[in-house]
Amino acid sequence: MITAATNSRIKRLIQLNQKAKIRRQENVFVTEGVRMFLEAPLTKIREVYVSESFLGRDLCPEKLAAVTYEVVEDSLFKKISDTATPQGILCVMEQLHYEPGQLLQKENPLLLLLENIQDPGNLGTMFRTAEAAGADGIIMSRDTVDVYNPKVIRSTMGSIFRMPFYYAQDLQETVAALRCGGVQVYAAHLGGKQYYTQASYTGGTAFLVGNEGNGLLEETARAADQTVRIPMEGEVESLNAAVSAAVMLYEAFRQRRQERGEL
Amino acid sequence: MITAATNSRIKRLIQLNQKAKIRRQENVFVTEGVRMFLEAPLTKIREVYVSESFLGRDLCPEKLAAVTYEVVEDSLFKKISDTATPQGILCVMEQLHYEPGQLLQKENPLLLLLENIQDPGNLGTMFRTAEAAGADGIIMSRDTVDVYNPKVIRSTMGSIFRMPFYYAQDLQETVAALRCGGVQVYAAHLGGKQYYTQASYTGGTAFLVGNEGNGLLEETARAADQTVRIPMEGEVESLNAAVSAAVMLYEAFRQRRQERGEL
Repeated sequence: MITAATNSRIKRLIQLNQKAKIRRQENVFVTEGVRMFLEAPLTKIREVYVSESFLGRDLCPEKLAAVTYEVVEDSLFKKISDTATPQGILCVMEQLHYEPGQLLQKENPLLLLLENIQDPGNLGTMFRTAEAAGADGIIMSRDTVDVYNPKVIRSTMGSIFRMPFYYAQDLQETVAALRCGGVQVYAAHLGGKQYYTQASYTGGTAFLVGNEGNGLLEETARAADQTVRIPMEGEVESLNAAVSAAVMLYEAFRQRRQERGEL
Repeated sequence: MITAATNSRIKRLIQLNQKAKIRRQENVFVTEGVRMFLEAPLTKIREVYVSESFLGRDLCPEKLAAVTYEVVEDSLFKKISDTATPQGILCVMEQLHYEPGQLLQKENPLLLLLENIQDPGNLGTMFRTAEAAGADGIIMSRDTVDVYNPKVIRSTMGSIFRMPFYYAQDLQETVAALRCGGVQVYAAHLGGKQYYTQASYTGGTAFLVGNEGNGLLEETARAADQTVRIPMEGEVESLNAAVSAAVMLYEAFRQRRQERGEL
Protein backbone atom coordinates (compact mmCIF):
# COMPACT_ATOMS: atom_id res chain seq x y z
CA MET A 1 0.00 0.00 0.00
CA ILE A 2 1.18 3.51 -0.83
CA THR A 3 1.09 5.66 2.31
CA ALA A 4 3.61 8.45 1.69
CA ALA A 5 2.81 11.69 -0.13
CA THR A 6 6.45 11.79 -1.15
CA ASN A 7 6.06 8.56 -3.13
CA SER A 8 7.16 9.30 -6.71
CA ARG A 9 4.07 7.65 -8.21
CA ILE A 10 1.80 9.90 -6.14
CA LYS A 11 3.65 12.98 -7.34
CA ARG A 12 3.41 11.79 -10.93
CA LEU A 13 -0.36 11.11 -10.68
CA ILE A 14 -0.96 14.64 -9.39
CA GLN A 15 1.05 15.99 -12.32
CA LEU A 16 -0.86 13.85 -14.81
CA ASN A 17 -4.11 15.40 -13.56
CA GLN A 18 -2.75 18.91 -13.84
CA LYS A 19 -0.51 19.05 -16.90
CA ALA A 20 -1.45 18.34 -20.50
CA LYS A 21 2.21 18.37 -21.49
CA ILE A 22 3.12 15.52 -19.15
CA ARG A 23 0.09 13.51 -20.26
CA ARG A 24 1.23 14.00 -23.86
CA GLN A 25 4.84 13.03 -23.11
CA GLU A 26 3.75 9.81 -21.44
CA ASN A 27 0.89 9.22 -23.92
CA VAL A 28 -1.55 8.63 -21.04
CA PHE A 29 -4.49 10.19 -19.24
CA VAL A 30 -6.29 9.65 -15.93
CA THR A 31 -9.88 8.50 -15.44
CA GLU A 32 -11.71 8.34 -12.13
CA GLY A 33 -14.71 6.56 -10.74
CA VAL A 34 -16.41 3.19 -10.95
CA ARG A 35 -18.30 3.91 -14.12
CA MET A 36 -15.22 5.00 -16.06
CA PHE A 37 -13.33 1.95 -14.78
CA LEU A 38 -16.09 -0.39 -15.92
CA GLU A 39 -16.25 1.24 -19.35
CA ALA A 40 -12.47 1.44 -19.86
CA PRO A 41 -11.20 -1.05 -22.47
CA LEU A 42 -8.79 -3.46 -20.74
CA THR A 43 -6.23 -3.08 -23.54
CA LYS A 44 -5.92 0.62 -22.77
CA ILE A 45 -5.56 0.38 -18.97
CA ARG A 46 -1.95 0.82 -17.88
CA GLU A 47 -2.29 1.28 -14.11
CA VAL A 48 -5.12 1.12 -11.55
CA TYR A 49 -5.15 2.74 -8.11
CA VAL A 50 -7.81 2.08 -5.47
CA SER A 51 -8.27 3.62 -2.04
CA GLU A 52 -8.19 1.44 1.04
CA SER A 53 -11.88 1.97 1.78
CA PHE A 54 -12.83 1.37 -1.85
CA LEU A 55 -11.27 -2.06 -1.64
CA GLY A 56 -13.19 -2.75 1.56
CA ARG A 57 -16.50 -2.13 -0.23
CA ASP A 58 -15.83 -4.89 -2.79
CA LEU A 59 -17.17 -2.93 -5.77
CA CYS A 60 -16.74 -4.23 -9.38
CA PRO A 61 -14.82 -7.35 -8.24
CA GLU A 62 -14.82 -9.01 -11.71
CA LYS A 63 -13.08 -6.18 -13.49
CA LEU A 64 -10.69 -5.62 -10.57
CA ALA A 65 -9.72 -9.29 -10.80
CA ALA A 66 -8.76 -8.71 -14.45
CA VAL A 67 -6.21 -5.98 -13.69
CA THR A 68 -3.22 -5.34 -11.46
CA TYR A 69 -3.92 -2.58 -8.96
CA GLU A 70 -2.17 -0.64 -6.27
CA VAL A 71 -3.83 0.31 -2.96
CA VAL A 72 -3.50 3.90 -1.76
CA GLU A 73 -4.22 5.15 1.75
CA ASP A 74 -7.55 7.07 1.86
CA SER A 75 -6.14 10.47 2.79
CA LEU A 76 -3.52 10.14 0.07
CA PHE A 77 -6.10 9.09 -2.50
CA LYS A 78 -7.82 12.44 -1.95
CA LYS A 79 -4.61 14.11 -3.10
CA ILE A 80 -4.39 12.20 -6.38
CA SER A 81 -8.09 12.68 -7.09
CA ASP A 82 -9.35 15.59 -9.18
CA THR A 83 -12.73 15.55 -7.41
CA ALA A 84 -13.86 16.84 -4.01
CA THR A 85 -15.44 13.51 -3.06
CA PRO A 86 -13.38 10.80 -4.80
CA GLN A 87 -15.02 7.45 -5.49
CA GLY A 88 -11.75 5.69 -4.70
CA ILE A 89 -10.70 4.25 -8.06
CA LEU A 90 -8.44 5.84 -10.64
CA CYS A 91 -6.89 4.48 -13.84
CA VAL A 92 -3.95 5.61 -15.91
CA MET A 93 -5.03 4.93 -19.48
CA GLU A 94 -3.24 4.98 -22.80
CA GLN A 95 -4.25 7.94 -24.98
CA LEU A 96 -6.55 7.19 -27.90
CA HIS A 97 -5.28 7.82 -31.41
CA TYR A 98 -7.50 7.84 -34.46
CA GLU A 99 -6.71 8.32 -38.13
CA PRO A 100 -8.89 10.88 -39.92
CA GLY A 101 -10.20 8.09 -42.15
CA GLN A 102 -11.68 6.29 -39.13
CA LEU A 103 -14.19 9.12 -38.74
CA LEU A 104 -15.31 8.73 -42.35
CA GLN A 105 -15.91 5.01 -42.62
CA LYS A 106 -19.68 5.21 -42.70
CA GLU A 107 -21.73 6.46 -45.60
CA ASN A 108 -23.14 9.91 -44.84
CA PRO A 109 -21.08 10.54 -41.72
CA LEU A 110 -22.22 13.00 -39.06
CA LEU A 111 -19.34 15.00 -37.60
CA LEU A 112 -18.79 17.77 -35.07
CA LEU A 113 -16.00 20.28 -35.76
CA LEU A 114 -14.94 22.38 -32.80
CA GLU A 115 -12.90 25.56 -32.85
CA ASN A 116 -11.22 26.78 -29.68
CA ILE A 117 -13.70 25.34 -27.16
CA GLN A 118 -12.27 26.27 -23.76
CA ASP A 119 -14.67 24.98 -21.14
CA PRO A 120 -13.83 21.37 -20.17
CA GLY A 121 -17.43 20.65 -19.15
CA ASN A 122 -18.69 21.87 -22.51
CA LEU A 123 -16.25 19.69 -24.45
CA GLY A 124 -17.07 16.58 -22.42
CA THR A 125 -20.81 17.21 -22.77
CA MET A 126 -20.36 17.51 -26.54
CA PHE A 127 -18.72 14.07 -26.67
CA ARG A 128 -21.61 12.59 -24.68
CA THR A 129 -24.27 14.32 -26.81
CA ALA A 130 -22.52 13.49 -30.09
CA GLU A 131 -22.46 9.79 -29.27
CA ALA A 132 -26.13 9.90 -28.27
CA ALA A 133 -27.13 11.64 -31.51
CA GLY A 134 -25.31 9.02 -33.58
CA ALA A 135 -22.34 11.16 -34.64
CA ASP A 136 -19.28 9.46 -36.13
CA GLY A 137 -16.53 11.68 -34.82
CA ILE A 138 -15.28 14.96 -33.40
CA ILE A 139 -12.51 17.06 -34.95
CA MET A 140 -11.01 19.83 -32.83
CA SER A 141 -8.83 22.82 -33.61
CA ARG A 142 -5.40 22.74 -31.95
CA ASP A 143 -6.38 25.53 -29.55
CA THR A 144 -9.31 23.57 -28.13
CA VAL A 145 -8.90 22.55 -24.46
CA ASP A 146 -7.06 19.24 -23.93
CA VAL A 147 -9.53 16.39 -24.28
CA TYR A 148 -7.58 14.49 -21.58
CA ASN A 149 -8.19 17.19 -18.97
CA PRO A 150 -9.84 15.29 -16.06
CA LYS A 151 -12.91 17.55 -16.17
CA VAL A 152 -13.43 16.81 -19.87
CA ILE A 153 -13.04 13.07 -19.27
CA ARG A 154 -15.56 13.16 -16.42
CA SER A 155 -18.15 15.10 -18.43
CA THR A 156 -17.98 12.63 -21.33
CA MET A 157 -19.49 9.99 -19.01
CA GLY A 158 -17.57 7.31 -20.89
CA SER A 159 -18.14 8.58 -24.44
CA ILE A 160 -14.41 9.39 -24.62
CA PHE A 161 -13.82 5.64 -25.09
CA ARG A 162 -16.29 5.34 -27.96
CA MET A 163 -16.37 8.57 -29.96
CA PRO A 164 -13.48 8.83 -32.47
CA PHE A 165 -11.73 12.21 -32.43
CA TYR A 166 -8.57 14.03 -33.41
CA TYR A 167 -6.97 17.47 -33.27
CA ALA A 168 -6.64 19.01 -36.73
CA GLN A 169 -3.37 20.75 -37.57
CA ASP A 170 -5.39 23.34 -39.46
CA LEU A 171 -9.17 23.27 -39.01
CA GLN A 172 -9.84 25.37 -42.12
CA GLU A 173 -7.91 22.88 -44.26
CA THR A 174 -9.89 20.06 -42.66
CA VAL A 175 -13.11 21.84 -43.60
CA ALA A 176 -11.89 22.13 -47.21
CA ALA A 177 -10.88 18.45 -47.29
CA LEU A 178 -14.23 17.32 -45.90
CA ARG A 179 -16.06 19.38 -48.51
CA CYS A 180 -13.92 17.82 -51.25
CA GLY A 181 -14.97 14.44 -49.89
CA GLY A 182 -18.65 15.32 -50.23
CA VAL A 183 -19.40 16.24 -46.62
CA GLN A 184 -21.54 19.37 -46.29
CA VAL A 185 -20.09 21.67 -43.64
CA TYR A 186 -22.52 23.92 -41.73
CA ALA A 187 -21.12 26.69 -39.57
CA ALA A 188 -23.20 27.71 -36.55
CA HIS A 189 -23.18 31.49 -36.79
CA LEU A 190 -25.24 34.28 -35.21
CA GLY A 191 -25.44 35.90 -38.64
CA GLY A 192 -26.24 32.64 -40.45
CA LYS A 193 -28.17 33.03 -43.71
CA GLN A 194 -30.71 30.31 -42.97
CA TYR A 195 -32.15 28.68 -39.87
CA TYR A 196 -30.58 25.38 -38.86
CA THR A 197 -33.96 23.72 -39.40
CA GLN A 198 -34.02 24.73 -43.08
CA ALA A 199 -31.09 22.59 -44.22
CA SER A 200 -31.07 18.85 -44.88
CA TYR A 201 -28.63 16.78 -42.84
CA THR A 202 -29.35 13.30 -44.22
CA GLY A 203 -26.21 13.32 -46.40
CA GLY A 204 -22.66 13.57 -45.05
CA THR A 205 -22.83 16.45 -42.55
CA ALA A 206 -20.42 18.34 -40.33
CA PHE A 207 -21.39 21.04 -37.80
CA LEU A 208 -18.81 23.68 -37.05
CA VAL A 209 -19.12 25.23 -33.56
CA GLY A 210 -16.87 28.00 -32.23
CA ASN A 211 -15.46 29.35 -28.99
CA GLU A 212 -17.80 30.05 -26.06
CA GLY A 213 -17.21 33.79 -26.00
CA ASN A 214 -16.32 34.68 -29.55
CA GLY A 215 -17.89 32.06 -31.77
CA LEU A 216 -16.11 30.98 -34.98
CA LEU A 217 -13.33 32.95 -36.63
CA GLU A 218 -14.81 34.69 -39.67
CA GLU A 219 -12.43 32.87 -42.03
CA THR A 220 -13.42 29.50 -40.54
CA ALA A 221 -17.12 30.29 -40.97
CA ARG A 222 -16.40 31.34 -44.58
CA ALA A 223 -14.65 28.02 -45.25
CA ALA A 224 -17.93 26.18 -44.61
CA ASP A 225 -20.56 25.42 -47.27
CA GLN A 226 -23.23 27.39 -45.43
CA THR A 227 -23.76 29.32 -42.24
CA VAL A 228 -26.81 28.35 -40.20
CA ARG A 229 -28.48 30.22 -37.40
CA ILE A 230 -30.26 28.90 -34.34
CA PRO A 231 -33.22 31.22 -33.74
CA MET A 232 -33.33 32.94 -30.35
CA GLU A 233 -36.18 34.80 -28.69
CA GLY A 234 -35.91 37.38 -25.96
CA GLU A 235 -32.65 39.18 -25.41
CA VAL A 236 -30.39 36.15 -25.52
CA GLU A 237 -27.22 36.91 -27.49
CA SER A 238 -25.99 33.37 -27.89
CA LEU A 239 -26.49 29.85 -26.60
CA ASN A 240 -24.06 27.82 -24.55
CA ALA A 241 -21.69 26.08 -27.03
CA ALA A 242 -22.66 22.56 -25.89
CA VAL A 243 -26.35 23.49 -26.21
CA SER A 244 -25.80 24.81 -29.76
CA ALA A 245 -24.06 21.58 -30.73
CA ALA A 246 -26.85 19.51 -29.12
CA VAL A 247 -29.67 21.39 -30.86
CA MET A 248 -28.06 20.91 -34.29
CA LEU A 249 -26.97 17.30 -33.73
CA TYR A 250 -30.46 16.34 -32.57
CA GLU A 251 -32.06 18.07 -35.57
CA ALA A 252 -29.76 16.01 -37.84
CA PHE A 253 -30.63 12.88 -35.84
CA ARG A 254 -34.36 13.68 -36.15
CA GLN A 255 -34.09 14.07 -39.93
CA ARG A 256 -32.03 10.90 -40.27
CA ARG A 257 -34.46 8.86 -38.18
CA GLN A 258 -37.37 10.27 -40.15
CA GLU A 259 -35.67 9.23 -43.41
CA ARG A 260 -35.07 5.74 -42.03
CA GLY A 261 -38.75 5.51 -41.12
CA GLU A 262 -38.03 5.40 -37.40
CA LEU A 263 -40.35 8.25 -36.53
CA MET B 1 -12.65 53.29 -0.53
CA ILE B 2 -12.93 50.05 1.39
CA THR B 3 -9.44 48.71 2.16
CA ALA B 4 -9.87 46.46 5.19
CA ALA B 5 -10.84 42.80 5.02
CA THR B 6 -12.38 43.25 8.46
CA ASN B 7 -14.90 45.75 7.06
CA SER B 8 -18.36 44.45 7.93
CA ARG B 9 -19.66 45.00 4.39
CA ILE B 10 -16.87 42.84 2.94
CA LYS B 11 -17.68 40.06 5.37
CA ARG B 12 -21.34 40.28 4.47
CA LEU B 13 -20.66 40.17 0.69
CA ILE B 14 -18.60 37.00 1.12
CA GLN B 15 -21.46 35.46 3.08
CA LEU B 16 -24.01 36.50 0.45
CA ASN B 17 -21.97 34.62 -2.17
CA GLN B 18 -21.73 31.51 -0.04
CA LYS B 19 -25.01 31.15 1.83
CA ALA B 20 -28.47 30.76 0.37
CA LYS B 21 -30.00 31.27 3.81
CA ILE B 22 -28.48 34.72 4.23
CA ARG B 23 -29.49 35.72 0.70
CA ARG B 24 -33.03 34.65 1.54
CA GLN B 25 -33.09 36.50 4.87
CA GLU B 26 -31.96 39.73 3.21
CA ASN B 27 -34.03 39.09 0.06
CA VAL B 28 -31.00 39.81 -2.14
CA PHE B 29 -28.46 38.13 -4.42
CA VAL B 30 -25.10 39.05 -5.93
CA THR B 31 -24.29 39.50 -9.61
CA GLU B 32 -20.83 40.02 -11.07
CA GLY B 33 -19.38 41.40 -14.25
CA VAL B 34 -20.02 44.17 -16.74
CA ARG B 35 -22.65 42.34 -18.72
CA MET B 36 -24.77 41.52 -15.69
CA PHE B 37 -24.45 45.10 -14.47
CA LEU B 38 -25.61 46.46 -17.82
CA GLU B 39 -28.56 44.07 -17.94
CA ALA B 40 -29.60 44.58 -14.30
CA PRO B 41 -32.84 46.57 -13.97
CA LEU B 42 -32.06 49.80 -12.05
CA THR B 43 -35.07 49.32 -9.79
CA LYS B 44 -33.61 46.05 -8.51
CA ILE B 45 -30.06 47.27 -7.81
CA ARG B 46 -29.48 47.87 -4.10
CA GLU B 47 -25.69 48.26 -3.92
CA VAL B 48 -22.81 48.43 -6.41
CA TYR B 49 -19.13 47.69 -5.68
CA VAL B 50 -16.31 48.37 -8.14
CA SER B 51 -12.59 47.61 -7.84
CA GLU B 52 -10.07 50.42 -7.97
CA SER B 53 -8.67 49.30 -11.32
CA PHE B 54 -12.16 48.81 -12.78
CA LEU B 55 -12.90 52.44 -12.06
CA GLY B 56 -9.65 53.45 -13.78
CA ARG B 57 -10.74 51.73 -16.99
CA ASP B 58 -13.88 53.88 -17.28
CA LEU B 59 -16.16 51.04 -18.42
CA CYS B 60 -19.96 51.52 -18.69
CA PRO B 61 -19.82 55.16 -17.49
CA GLU B 62 -23.51 55.91 -18.27
CA LYS B 63 -24.92 53.18 -16.08
CA LEU B 64 -22.37 53.85 -13.33
CA ALA B 65 -23.51 57.47 -13.32
CA ALA B 66 -27.06 56.28 -12.64
CA VAL B 67 -26.16 54.42 -9.43
CA THR B 68 -24.34 54.98 -6.15
CA TYR B 69 -21.25 52.80 -5.89
CA GLU B 70 -18.52 51.97 -3.45
CA VAL B 71 -14.88 51.50 -4.45
CA VAL B 72 -13.03 48.45 -3.15
CA GLU B 73 -9.26 47.92 -3.17
CA ASP B 74 -8.25 45.42 -5.89
CA SER B 75 -6.87 42.71 -3.59
CA LEU B 76 -9.97 42.96 -1.44
CA PHE B 77 -12.26 42.80 -4.46
CA LYS B 78 -10.79 39.38 -5.24
CA LYS B 79 -12.06 38.22 -1.87
CA ILE B 80 -15.65 39.30 -2.46
CA SER B 81 -15.65 37.89 -5.99
CA ASP B 82 -16.86 34.36 -6.70
CA THR B 83 -14.65 34.10 -9.81
CA ALA B 84 -10.91 33.44 -10.21
CA THR B 85 -10.44 36.48 -12.46
CA PRO B 86 -12.99 39.08 -11.31
CA GLN B 87 -14.09 41.74 -13.78
CA GLY B 88 -14.21 44.29 -10.98
CA ILE B 89 -17.92 45.08 -10.66
CA LEU B 90 -20.43 43.46 -8.37
CA CYS B 91 -24.05 44.31 -7.55
CA VAL B 92 -26.28 43.38 -4.65
CA MET B 93 -29.70 42.96 -6.24
CA GLU B 94 -33.18 42.48 -4.85
CA GLN B 95 -34.52 38.95 -5.33
CA LEU B 96 -37.13 38.48 -8.04
CA HIS B 97 -40.57 37.29 -7.03
CA TYR B 98 -43.19 36.07 -9.48
CA GLU B 99 -46.73 34.91 -8.97
CA PRO B 100 -47.59 31.57 -10.62
CA GLY B 101 -50.12 33.40 -12.79
CA GLN B 102 -47.36 35.50 -14.35
CA LEU B 103 -46.00 32.39 -16.05
CA LEU B 104 -49.38 31.65 -17.60
CA GLN B 105 -50.35 34.97 -19.11
CA LYS B 106 -49.79 33.95 -22.72
CA GLU B 107 -52.00 31.65 -24.69
CA ASN B 108 -50.32 28.26 -25.13
CA PRO B 109 -47.50 28.86 -22.67
CA LEU B 110 -44.24 26.92 -22.89
CA LEU B 111 -42.86 26.00 -19.47
CA LEU B 112 -39.94 24.10 -18.01
CA LEU B 113 -40.52 22.15 -14.78
CA LEU B 114 -37.38 21.10 -12.94
CA GLU B 115 -37.08 18.51 -10.20
CA ASN B 116 -34.04 18.47 -7.95
CA ILE B 117 -31.51 19.92 -10.43
CA GLN B 118 -28.25 20.17 -8.46
CA ASP B 119 -25.60 21.50 -10.83
CA PRO B 120 -25.58 25.32 -10.80
CA GLY B 121 -24.16 25.49 -14.34
CA ASN B 122 -26.96 23.27 -15.61
CA LEU B 123 -29.66 25.38 -13.98
CA GLY B 124 -28.22 28.63 -15.31
CA THR B 125 -27.84 27.17 -18.81
CA MET B 126 -31.49 26.07 -18.70
CA PHE B 127 -32.59 29.64 -17.95
CA ARG B 128 -30.54 30.91 -20.90
CA THR B 129 -31.81 28.20 -23.26
CA ALA B 130 -35.43 28.56 -22.12
CA GLU B 131 -35.42 32.28 -22.87
CA ALA B 132 -33.85 31.63 -26.29
CA ALA B 133 -36.45 28.98 -27.15
CA GLY B 134 -39.29 31.35 -26.25
CA ALA B 135 -40.33 29.72 -23.00
CA ASP B 136 -42.62 31.60 -20.61
CA GLY B 137 -41.31 30.41 -17.27
CA ILE B 138 -39.46 27.90 -15.14
CA ILE B 139 -40.95 26.15 -12.12
CA MET B 140 -38.56 24.35 -9.77
CA SER B 141 -39.03 21.79 -7.01
CA ARG B 142 -37.98 22.99 -3.56
CA ASP B 143 -34.93 20.72 -3.56
CA THR B 144 -33.50 22.30 -6.73
CA VAL B 145 -30.23 24.22 -6.20
CA ASP B 146 -30.70 27.88 -5.16
CA VAL B 147 -31.25 29.97 -8.27
CA TYR B 148 -29.35 32.84 -6.57
CA ASN B 149 -26.17 30.76 -6.23
CA PRO B 150 -23.49 32.92 -7.97
CA LYS B 151 -22.65 30.10 -10.42
CA VAL B 152 -26.29 29.81 -11.49
CA ILE B 153 -26.55 33.57 -11.95
CA ARG B 154 -23.38 33.63 -14.05
CA SER B 155 -24.52 30.76 -16.29
CA THR B 156 -27.85 32.44 -17.03
CA MET B 157 -25.93 35.17 -18.89
CA GLY B 158 -28.61 37.67 -17.88
CA SER B 159 -31.68 35.50 -18.51
CA ILE B 160 -32.26 35.49 -14.73
CA PHE B 161 -33.60 39.05 -15.12
CA ARG B 162 -36.04 38.13 -17.87
CA MET B 163 -37.29 34.57 -17.36
CA PRO B 164 -40.11 34.33 -14.79
CA PHE B 165 -39.64 31.51 -12.27
CA TYR B 166 -40.69 30.22 -8.88
CA TYR B 167 -40.10 27.34 -6.49
CA ALA B 168 -43.17 25.12 -6.17
CA GLN B 169 -44.15 23.97 -2.69
CA ASP B 170 -45.10 20.62 -4.21
CA LEU B 171 -44.09 19.99 -7.83
CA GLN B 172 -46.54 17.12 -8.27
CA GLU B 173 -49.42 19.36 -7.23
CA THR B 174 -48.18 21.99 -9.66
CA VAL B 175 -48.21 19.40 -12.44
CA ALA B 176 -51.81 18.52 -11.56
CA ALA B 177 -52.82 22.19 -11.49
CA LEU B 178 -51.19 22.88 -14.86
CA ARG B 179 -52.99 19.91 -16.41
CA CYS B 180 -56.30 21.19 -15.00
CA GLY B 181 -55.54 24.49 -16.69
CA GLY B 182 -55.10 22.79 -20.06
CA VAL B 183 -51.31 22.64 -20.18
CA GLN B 184 -49.99 19.29 -21.46
CA VAL B 185 -47.17 18.07 -19.23
CA TYR B 186 -44.48 15.88 -20.82
CA ALA B 187 -42.03 14.06 -18.56
CA ALA B 188 -38.58 13.37 -20.01
CA HIS B 189 -38.01 9.75 -19.11
CA LEU B 190 -35.58 7.06 -20.25
CA GLY B 191 -38.51 4.65 -20.39
CA GLY B 192 -40.81 7.12 -22.15
CA LYS B 193 -43.59 5.58 -24.24
CA GLN B 194 -43.02 7.77 -27.30
CA TYR B 195 -40.16 9.76 -28.75
CA TYR B 196 -40.12 13.46 -27.93
CA THR B 197 -40.47 14.19 -31.67
CA GLN B 198 -43.80 12.34 -31.85
CA ALA B 199 -45.79 14.71 -29.67
CA SER B 200 -47.23 18.10 -30.60
CA TYR B 201 -46.08 21.08 -28.56
CA THR B 202 -48.03 23.88 -30.23
CA GLY B 203 -50.62 24.00 -27.43
CA GLY B 204 -49.84 24.85 -23.81
CA THR B 205 -46.79 22.68 -23.01
CA ALA B 206 -44.61 21.94 -19.99
CA PHE B 207 -41.48 19.78 -20.02
CA LEU B 208 -40.60 18.01 -16.80
CA VAL B 209 -36.86 17.33 -16.36
CA GLY B 210 -35.35 15.51 -13.38
CA ASN B 211 -32.16 15.30 -11.35
CA GLU B 212 -28.81 14.83 -13.12
CA GLY B 213 -28.06 11.44 -11.66
CA ASN B 214 -31.45 9.93 -10.95
CA GLY B 215 -33.90 11.55 -13.34
CA LEU B 216 -37.48 12.18 -12.21
CA LEU B 217 -39.11 10.51 -9.23
CA GLU B 218 -41.43 7.81 -10.55
CA GLU B 219 -44.48 9.47 -8.95
CA THR B 220 -43.60 12.81 -10.55
CA ALA B 221 -43.26 11.17 -13.98
CA ARG B 222 -46.62 9.47 -13.41
CA ALA B 223 -48.25 12.80 -12.59
CA ALA B 224 -47.51 14.02 -16.14
CA ASP B 225 -49.81 13.53 -19.15
CA GLN B 226 -47.20 11.55 -21.04
CA THR B 227 -43.63 10.36 -20.75
CA VAL B 228 -41.38 11.13 -23.71
CA ARG B 229 -38.02 9.67 -24.59
CA ILE B 230 -35.07 11.29 -26.29
CA PRO B 231 -33.52 8.62 -28.53
CA MET B 232 -29.87 7.78 -27.88
CA GLU B 233 -27.43 5.83 -30.01
CA GLY B 234 -24.26 4.11 -28.85
CA GLU B 235 -23.87 3.20 -25.20
CA VAL B 236 -24.99 6.53 -23.76
CA GLU B 237 -27.22 5.99 -20.73
CA SER B 238 -28.56 9.52 -20.44
CA LEU B 239 -27.99 13.06 -21.64
CA ASN B 240 -26.83 16.01 -19.56
CA ALA B 241 -29.95 17.55 -17.96
CA ALA B 242 -29.44 20.95 -19.63
CA VAL B 243 -28.97 19.21 -22.99
CA SER B 244 -32.21 17.22 -22.51
CA ALA B 245 -34.09 20.41 -21.72
CA ALA B 246 -32.54 22.17 -24.73
CA VAL B 247 -33.38 19.39 -27.18
CA MET B 248 -37.03 19.35 -26.10
CA LEU B 249 -37.43 23.13 -25.87
CA TYR B 250 -35.97 23.57 -29.35
CA GLU B 251 -38.24 20.87 -30.79
CA ALA B 252 -41.22 22.76 -29.30
CA PHE B 253 -39.82 26.03 -30.69
CA ARG B 254 -39.37 24.41 -34.14
CA GLN B 255 -42.98 23.18 -34.16
CA ARG B 256 -44.30 26.54 -32.98
CA ARG B 257 -42.32 28.46 -35.60
CA GLN B 258 -43.48 26.04 -38.27
CA GLU B 259 -47.09 26.60 -37.22
CA ARG B 260 -46.59 30.36 -37.33
CA GLY B 261 -45.19 30.00 -40.86
CA GLU B 262 -41.72 31.17 -39.80
CA LEU B 263 -39.93 28.16 -41.23
